[in-house]
Amino acid sequence: MSSVDRTRIRRLPERAVSDREAIEAVLDEGLVCHVAYTATDGRPVVIPTLYVRDGDRVLIHGSNSMGIAKAVRAGSPLSVAVTHLDGVVVARSAFNSSANYRSVVIHGYGRLLEPEEKAAAFDIIVDRLIPGRLAELRPSTESEIAQTSVIELALDEVSAKARAGGPGDDPEDLDADVWAGVVPMKVDFGEPIPDAGLHPGIKLPDYLRSYRR
Amino acid sequence: MSSVDRTRIRRLPERAVSDREAIEAVLDEGLVCHVAYTATDGRPVVIPTLYVRDGDRVLIHGSNSMGIAKAVRAGSPLSVAVTHLDGVVVARSAFNSSANYRSVVIHGYGRLLEPEEKAAAFDIIVDRLIPGRLAELRPSTESEIAQTSVIELALDEVSAKARAGGPGDDPEDLDADVWAGVVPMKVDFGEPIPDAGLHPGIKLPDYLRSYRR
Repeated sequence: MSSVDRTRIRRLPERAVSDREAIEAVLDEGLVCHVAYTATDGRPVVIPTLYVRDGDRVLIHGSNSMGIAKAVRAGSPLSVAVTHLDGVVVARSAFNSSANYRSVVIHGYGRLLEPEEKAAAFDIIVDRLIPGRLAELRPSTESEIAQTSVIELALDEVSAKARAGGPGDDPEDLDADVWAGVVPMKVDFGEPIPDAGLHPGIKLPDYLRSYRR
Repeated sequence: MSSVDRTRIRRLPERAVSDREAIEAVLDEGLVCHVAYTATDGRPVVIPTLYVRDGDRVLIHGSNSMGIAKAVRAGSPLSVAVTHLDGVVVARSAFNSSANYRSVVIHGYGRLLEPEEKAAAFDIIVDRLIPGRLAELRPSTESEIAQTSVIELALDEVSAKARAGGPGDDPEDLDADVWAGVVPMKVDFGEPIPDAGLHPGIKLPDYLRSYRR
């Protein structure tokens, strides 16, 4: 399985516009990122958590007790990855078999938002994760906001990698009597399932009927 | 968005059988893991890469030049996460909105397989990623195997977290006049796409026709 045929998109400081657009598209399509930090015992730790992109930053959602929040308080840098798998690349050799994917990795020092910044950030997170939802909800309470941590990470040091297309077989393998191609993959959002306690007459809102990323 | 209503499955040393089965099911369903390691400059780094589970270990696939291989050689511990998103939990408050997911995190010291172990491990990786494929391929060459790194990580220190089911709303929110429920998500494998250079008469094998994880 080849991991070397990746297209490296340049880091943001020297990006072309199209690179920045590609990075934003990857970030905007995701719901969950994987965050790596250095724990207080010095070991690297990775965990999945919800995030959104907001302009030139991502907002990482967590609870106050989470390891990420503790690590940021203790000065650990972060590394954050968002990955979309697009297909299994079935080549004529094991070595050239691979996966089609798009991935963005962000490095930097996260900042825990201050209490007075969190309510607005919390609204942005809800609005980006489920556009249209925020207007229908009661405001979050002070206690709810206090229990939530939001970590801001600037999109300063960002790289993207991607692989697309069919197998990249060696010329001498092209006559092999074996099927080759790609099994495409995508995330499918199904029909929304109403809560068992939903009162009769409450209809599925349009923003959920057409939900996708 | 609530991150606190997670079910923590016990670590393997004190697991029930069902916990081990749940962990293996999460690992066997995935194609890509996110690996965190400490880079030589001391910073945590996370990257996505292909992996498979093989009994009591995972085999992480890479190239010799990858940061993970360098970090393992330099003595860095690893943290490896596999996450499946199952739905967007649309609660009657922002705070109780969440995601349904299943996630496994493995910690430990990886071991770079020795040259004489790699050919067998490479075959296991191909066989687990695309069952049925290996028998149809030419053997990997010594050069191909030499260019590939395989890192073994034991399933000794493993934890799993999951959330399933509908929204966990506060009792005082249940009368809100707003829809609540879950938008289910799953990975969908599409119709395999033949390589442009595929010779006429080579049929799609059954193991790809029914490909899924």
